[in-house]
Amino acid sequence: MHQQKLKVNTSGRGFTNITQQVAQAVDDATTHQGLCHVFVHHTSASLIIQENADPDVRVDLNAFFARLVPDGDSLYRHTDEGPDDMSAHVRSVLTATALTIPIDQGHLDLGTWQGIYLWEHRTSPHQRRITVTIVGA
Amino acid sequence: MHQQKLKVNTSGRGFTNITQQVAQAVDDATTHQGLCHVFVHHTSASLIIQENADPDVRVDLNAFFARLVPDGDSLYRHTDEGPDDMSAHVRSVLTATALTIPIDQGHLDLGTWQGIYLWEHRTSPHQRRITVTIVGA
Amino acid sequence: MHQQKLKVNTSGRGFTNITQQVAQAVDDATTHQGLCHVFVHHTSASLIIQENADPDVRVDLNAFFARLVPDGDSLYRHTDEGPDDMSAHVRSVLTATALTIPIDQGHLDLGTWQGIYLWEHRTSPHQRRITVTIVGA
Repeated sequence: MHQQKLKVNTSGRGFTNITQQVAQAVDDATTHQGLCHVFVHHTSASLIIQENADPDVRVDLNAFFARLVPDGDSLYRHTDEGPDDMSAHVRSVLTATALTIPIDQGHLDLGTWQGIYLWEHRTSPHQRRITVTIVGA
Repeated sequence: MHQQKLKVNTSGRGFTNITQQVAQAVDDATTHQGLCHVFVHHTSASLIIQENADPDVRVDLNAFFARLVPDGDSLYRHTDEGPDDMSAHVRSVLTATALTIPIDQGHLDLGTWQGIYLWEHRTSPHQRRITVTIVGA
Repeated sequence: MHQQKLKVNTSGRGFTNITQQVAQAVDDATTHQGLCHVFVHHTSASLIIQENADPDVRVDLNAFFARLVPDGDSLYRHTDEGPDDMSAHVRSVLTATALTIPIDQGHLDLGTWQGIYLWEHRTSPHQRRITVTIVGA
């Protein structure tokens, strides 16, 4: 059992690659086999595993979600913090607050093209708290 | 290792806050550090982590999903149990059947504004089975 | 702690029921109580838990996602591998890369109507790598 806290400063809506920080936490834990759990302590930012090769994948994800979950939707009552507040909550529900990834032979066992990203859904910069927990033998 | 079964009676489509019951299971387990896993044994109800402050967030989530995944969609073949049957399955796929949350210093380590909700997608009341599993040291 | 690798050959877009293979891995592990984690090492295929009774549920899921996340969307820049490439990534983000299911009394504790499916999002056949990890006592 090993637990590590991360703080990630985002620059507003978009993706921050945290793969290296999570992989480092796994290496620090010296766990041969097990699971690595990543959790974001917020309801307006997400964690996703996505392609780490072509940056256009993230550009297209942003575009798709901008169309599917637009800011300033007239549907919303929860608008006190601005037009990106409720859309950020909906994006959080449609994606993930936590990820769990296998550990094999002491390392984070991601696929070749898989990267771990913090997805900031608010338009302004935020500091986001993340907890990495490692369970194994 | 600690496992606890919950039964939640829903009053039809909408949210039931189960944070207190999950937090109690963690306290009962006397686990200092680890993970708390929550699982719903159904394909027409979900578990989500969302803002626990303004109830309008849940009103808006209901409104967004009513528009994105409407009942009685002419697309559906699976309609034997009524117009809310297949839409409930789609909502389940777009959200989550299970949540995993870190345990730190013996307590469920949610963010300040994070609550755990059972989201009933069927329009009539149901009894939903949930299993809470705690792994840690 | 027990870990097993699976390879699943898909025949293009659609669902492969892997419940039996995952349940077998749990039985092999002789874990009385714990968690079973299933992870797909790709960003254009997903894992979902859905109804295992009426096959029309999967037909309708395919139809819903074909409308929500169409192939060849003019929005996309990431199109080198064809019209189903970026839509596959979006579908992966809207569903799940990993599932975690409780183990009770030595067996995978799914609900009566819950099956585990690999959802191939690419239109051509692929071989998909899956890791099953079992943690428990």
